[in-house]
Amino acid sequence: MIATVDNDGVPRVRSVGHRELLHPAGSPNLPIIVTSTDIRTPKIEQMRRSRTGLVELCCWMAGSKDQFRILGATHFVTAPDAGIGAQPIDVNRPSLALDKLTGQGFDWEAKRQELFDSIDEHGKAWWCKPPPGSVMDPHANPKDWPRTIPKLGEAQSEEDRCNQERALHNFALVLIEVVEVDWARVSTDPHQRTRFVRIGEEWEEQTLMP
Amino acid sequence: MIATVDNDGVPRVRSVGHRELLHPAGSPNLPIIVTSTDIRTPKIEQMRRSRTGLVELCCWMAGSKDQFRILGATHFVTAPDAGIGAQPIDVNRPSLALDKLTGQGFDWEAKRQELFDSIDEHGKAWWCKPPPGSVMDPHANPKDWPRTIPKLGEAQSEEDRCNQERALHNFALVLIEVVEVDWARVSTDPHQRTRFVRIGEEWEEQTLMP
Repeated sequence: MIATVDNDGVPRVRSVGHRELLHPAGSPNLPIIVTSTDIRTPKIEQMRRSRTGLVELCCWMAGSKDQFRILGATHFVTAPDAGIGAQPIDVNRPSLALDKLTGQGFDWEAKRQELFDSIDEHGKAWWCKPPPGSVMDPHANPKDWPRTIPKLGEAQSEEDRCNQERALHNFALVLIEVVEVDWARVSTDPHQRTRFVRIGEEWEEQTLMP
Repeated sequence: MIATVDNDGVPRVRSVGHRELLHPAGSPNLPIIVTSTDIRTPKIEQMRRSRTGLVELCCWMAGSKDQFRILGATHFVTAPDAGIGAQPIDVNRPSLALDKLTGQGFDWEAKRQELFDSIDEHGKAWWCKPPPGSVMDPHANPKDWPRTIPKLGEAQSEEDRCNQERALHNFALVLIEVVEVDWARVSTDPHQRTRFVRIGEEWEEQTLMP
């Protein structure tokens, strides 16, 4: 789940798929969580306009009964021509991990294309249908929407190429640079809870009341 | 999961237990979701200070693959002597269901005690330990904390009575008067998504793009 704040100050939350965990070479202590979304969703607008640039993720592991609350600063990797504009500049927005990775020559556009291509052909097609969360046109026929999108480089028809281009245009990575983790375990007796806070490149640990 | 906004405008989210679903007699279309918390938790402060008075719940049903996002206005039922003060008055905060129930003579304090008492004896004891989420005193010995609290009216010792009183003092109901529901189904092909918005006592339905 990822929580954001909308323009009216209302908290919003929904499920989000995990794509990958990155860190700069030699710095496994600087994790970046990678998820993806459609640039036309309300949540990307909410994250872009956020004054703090922070989101919280919450993950409940039903098997082990662990809850992870993860606070992080958001950054985006969009299509070069997505035209959604930059995030408001906030000098306080943590970007240590991101800056290191970029400084190491990390190719963000290649990563965006790789993760887009890792989605199956039906899943990719969602990125070129009408905007997620928009009111559906009552006259629209879902049969008219693209059903599948082939892998990059494997489009056979002009239609496939065109759909692929549109979908890739709307596909964005959301990078969450982790700055705080609150880990609660309820399988133990008594329950345990620990908070990890990133200070510079180090992590400070505090034992909390569950 | 319940999402709130903290005093710095940062979105926060964590798991929350469901206690009950209420509605005024004769008005099943005006649901109130009941959860409980400790009045000393950060989330109650976040909800109380919220400018909008709204929270969003998100519930993922792994079995049926349904996601429910539920937007609602928060109200609290605290111990009469809890002293956390009233929520900021917001005439726009929806309270139609709440007002109806209260007008029907609903006994909120009895409901608070009933739901407190429905928690098992180990669970109840959490409400008289140090505040949830606070940094644990390194010299504290968890063995010194109460392990169990008997049912109301069944305390045998002065210590049990005292712990029971402290726990019940910290126990609060959070009432969430539902005003919007966003239901997404991903088990169907294609996926389906519907938004229900409460307008007065009626619900308007919109088909959304998944």
